[in-house]
Amino acid sequence: MTSIVRTVAEMREHVRAWKAAGQRVALVPTMGALHEGHLSLIRIAQEKAQRVIASVFVNPKQFAPHEDFDAYPRGEAIDAEKLASVGCDLMFAPNGAEMYAPGFSTTVTVSGVSEPLEGAARPQFFGGVATVVAKLFIQSQADVAVFGEKDYQQLQVVKRMARDLDIPIEIIGAPTARAEDGLALSSRNAYLSTEERAAAVALPTAMKAAAVHVAAGGRIDEAEQTATAALKAAGFGQVDYVEVREASELSRLGPGPIGEARGRILIAAWLGKTRLIDNMDVG
Amino acid sequence: MTSIVRTVAEMREHVRAWKAAGQRVALVPTMGALHEGHLSLIRIAQEKAQRVIASVFVNPKQFAPHEDFDAYPRGEAIDAEKLASVGCDLMFAPNGAEMYAPGFSTTVTVSGVSEPLEGAARPQFFGGVATVVAKLFIQSQADVAVFGEKDYQQLQVVKRMARDLDIPIEIIGAPTARAEDGLALSSRNAYLSTEERAAAVALPTAMKAAAVHVAAGGRIDEAEQTATAALKAAGFGQVDYVEVREASELSRLGPGPIGEARGRILIAAWLGKTRLIDNMDVG
Repeated sequence: MTSIVRTVAEMREHVRAWKAAGQRVALVPTMGALHEGHLSLIRIAQEKAQRVIASVFVNPKQFAPHEDFDAYPRGEAIDAEKLASVGCDLMFAPNGAEMYAPGFSTTVTVSGVSEPLEGAARPQFFGGVATVVAKLFIQSQADVAVFGEKDYQQLQVVKRMARDLDIPIEIIGAPTARAEDGLALSSRNAYLSTEERAAAVALPTAMKAAAVHVAAGGRIDEAEQTATAALKAAGFGQVDYVEVREASELSRLGPGPIGEARGRILIAAWLGKTRLIDNMDVG
Repeated sequence: MTSIVRTVAEMREHVRAWKAAGQRVALVPTMGALHEGHLSLIRIAQEKAQRVIASVFVNPKQFAPHEDFDAYPRGEAIDAEKLASVGCDLMFAPNGAEMYAPGFSTTVTVSGVSEPLEGAARPQFFGGVATVVAKLFIQSQADVAVFGEKDYQQLQVVKRMARDLDIPIEIIGAPTARAEDGLALSSRNAYLSTEERAAAVALPTAMKAAAVHVAAGGRIDEAEQTATAALKAAGFGQVDYVEVREASELSRLGPGPIGEARGRILIAAWLGKTRLIDNMDVG
């Protein structure tokens, strides 16, 4: 049975009791609409700590006015059942006022690593993410937090934020969970029609081909162009980016071969009205 | 004897031991150049907690390029002696690299209360303050922090930041320590010539007269204008602001009588090359 708490004070009571008993505490921040990818994060958290908290909060500050905040899938009862099924200890499900009290006026921003890619496409996004994640870390006083590599740039932003603000928490990046055909699991996949879902496999396929090309010494610009063309041919609309970047700072690499750099290929592209992202190691 | 530590890890070892012994810990953040005003903060901190840490760090992020970062008075040995004289337990004196590691890229900003007054005169200032104070709170894990009301807007910004980020720390504002003639104690008073020091008394004198005028039901605009004229007559140069503002949000009041609002008069003005600030309750 997973307990549900809605206030920071209640969460801290649980954490205080656990820490008094010498138990390590892990946090898995989510926006709900939980799928097997989230549950894989809970399982990894359970390997790192005796107690695991999943937070479920659809954070308005990381949505722009035209984005899908209102439409974002919500289903707390089902989320709670899924968390119980994997033995998660606590679900922290605050409402908007608990997270953002009247007069709330503080923002945590991370320059550099947050600026390209998702930061360029969604200017408010990482300020909203860094602020809510800083709050969740400080609220929970967890020893470790687990984030999916699916949101790779977010993982790098959160790592930098926690280091810079001296928050005493270890941050773990967990491998992206995928469907059998390779599509990364995502709450937004629920928006895809049957035809779109079939076409979506082109994203991981093109990504892997590009990663292989670059790892074999091919030019980065060729890999990016070939992957973009493959997405368009498969029925994708706008391709926001296909880029091979340095894996930690997300600085530019290429246009030629990658050489000794550690690379990550990152893709964002639209299929109908749904924006899909994915990424993988290049090497 | 006040121990001196230079790393976050060492400070946390002290704090861990104190907390394990059930002791409350207070933090008094300073930029050094300690005077009786700072020591009064230490004494108040000692009433609130069993253990007191004074941090001494001249924070480059709150100085603009043309400001007095390099010239800001520094004297660590004398600061340490003064802290020892009042029984402060620990002096945390990190160097720049301990506070801002290579690649540091996170900023904590507070909108609203940080924007007028000092925020208008010094656009980088409160971002630098909120960032370093958030770090100091998180580094020290102190239960309580004491700030002087001398930097009144800073006190309001820090309170908002700590509340918004859920940092579990109580923030105490301490009365401004003053010389016998009423001038607020400040490290920057050391910059004043003998003649300027004599003229400086016009600042608290004009401020008190304005506060009395407004408290007696007089118009706010009259009080502000009269105080500005008094400063000019006493030899002050540019007057950055003389304003009666709402005491917590620092929103505008006036131009007429204050009515039921809780007010604070805040002044910043130049005497030669030195910028002096002061403030007091109106009511």
